[in-house]
Amino acid sequence: MVMPQALLEKSLDKRVSLFLKDGRVLEGKLTGFDEYMNMVLDETIENNAAGEEERRLGTVVLRGNNVVSISIL
Amino acid sequence: MVMPQALLEKSLDKRVSLFLKDGRVLEGKLTGFDEYMNMVLDETIENNAAGEEERRLGTVVLRGNNVVSISIL
Amino acid sequence: MVMPQALLEKSLDKRVSLFLKDGRVLEGKLTGFDEYMNMVLDETIENNAAGEEERRLGTVVLRGNNVVSISIL
Amino acid sequence: MVMPQALLEKSLDKRVSLFLKDGRVLEGKLTGFDEYMNMVLDETIENNAAGEEERRLGTVVLRGNNVVSISIL
Amino acid sequence: MVMPQALLEKSLDKRVSLFLKDGRVLEGKLTGFDEYMNMVLDETIENNAAGEEERRLGTVVLRGNNVVSISIL
Amino acid sequence: MVMPQALLEKSLDKRVSLFLKDGRVLEGKLTGFDEYMNMVLDETIENNAAGEEERRLGTVVLRGNNVVSISIL
Amino acid sequence: MVMPQALLEKSLDKRVSLFLKDGRVLEGKLTGFDEYMNMVLDETIENNAAGEEERRLGTVVLRGNNVVSISIL
Repeated sequence: MVMPQALLEKSLDKRVSLFLKDGRVLEGKLTGFDEYMNMVLDETIENNAAGEEERRLGTVVLRGNNVVSISIL
Repeated sequence: MVMPQALLEKSLDKRVSLFLKDGRVLEGKLTGFDEYMNMVLDETIENNAAGEEERRLGTVVLRGNNVVSISIL
Repeated sequence: MVMPQALLEKSLDKRVSLFLKDGRVLEGKLTGFDEYMNMVLDETIENNAAGEEERRLGTVVLRGNNVVSISIL
Repeated sequence: MVMPQALLEKSLDKRVSLFLKDGRVLEGKLTGFDEYMNMVLDETIENNAAGEEERRLGTVVLRGNNVVSISIL
Repeated sequence: MVMPQALLEKSLDKRVSLFLKDGRVLEGKLTGFDEYMNMVLDETIENNAAGEEERRLGTVVLRGNNVVSISIL
Repeated sequence: MVMPQALLEKSLDKRVSLFLKDGRVLEGKLTGFDEYMNMVLDETIENNAAGEEERRLGTVVLRGNNVVSISIL
Repeated sequence: MVMPQALLEKSLDKRVSLFLKDGRVLEGKLTGFDEYMNMVLDETIENNAAGEEERRLGTVVLRGNNVVSISIL
């Protein structure tokens, strides 16, 4: 069994893709998270639904309750 | 009586279909979950409403509060 | 006085109809539930608003916070 | 001062009208409730916005967090 | 400093106007409330957005998490 | 570091502008709040999006979970 | 590992950009926050989606549960 938090820990410093509740998709390097699944991403890029780069956001803190899913890239 | 968490435990390493609040349907192998129904899926595929494959997402962590239902395949 | 959880317990192995927040209606045999009203249904059928069968879903785990109401059939 | 739970207790076995978050209005005999305002109704009828009968639902369990208001009839 | 609950206590048996999340506006005599801001209104009237009377609802229990604001009349 | 609750305390008896989740903007004198950011406003005015006065609401209790942001005027 | 709260602490007195659930984007100097990610911004500007200045809001308290993400500028 792979606990969700354990998978996040194994994914530190890897690139992940986050689907947010508001439809935005953020891609960045996962550098931290806490027990509420709040997350810290570095070198974050916001992509539109078609997967094209929209904006460079740099370092971002994300509130866990707005995250739908996290894909490990 | 089948407790929901017990059924999830029995479904580990089986393929499941997840209906999310944002309308997406994910299909993958359930490899883990926690007490908040956060889940880990492997070999995840995102299907559209008609059941056609849209995207391959690989390994995915899902926040439990975005999951509507889990069908054991 | 009939406590909601007591009624669910009395309804085990009976068919129930669940109205979900996303508008879907699921009908199936209630085989389990927990204190958060997460539920397990067997032989689940998804009906559309007109009550026609849409899809057979088999065994399903439902997150309690997406359930609006449960009708005992 | 009339505590909300005390009024519900006084309304047991009386007919009530429930307004749900999804716009549905249910009318039935209140036979039980718990501390989360989950409720049990008997002889439940679903009415449309114009107050016309839409469907007979029989015995229904309602999740408290989908209830907007309860009118004592 | 006026604590919100203290103001509600001072407003017992006065008429109040409640704005609900679903856009409805209820006017009635506040006869009770609890620590979740669940409320009991007597002689409740539902008004539309233009302030015209729509329906007489009598005695109503309101779930606190559907209340946006309470105006003391 | 300015804690949010400390800033609210310093803003007592000052005029504030509240943005609510339902899009309404209320302006009034902050006379109280609690740990859930429920708030009490006096001499409250509801403005439309263009900043024009819509309605005088007098004394208002606001549920914290409907407040998006508070601007100190 | 960079904990989300630790990154916010390191970002005190720096300019940040906040994406809110209601689509508004606020830019300001982060002067405080608490464990719920309620935040205090100074010299706050509200930008529209195109990044153009819409309004000057001065000192603002933000409820954490309306914040989607925080970009450190």
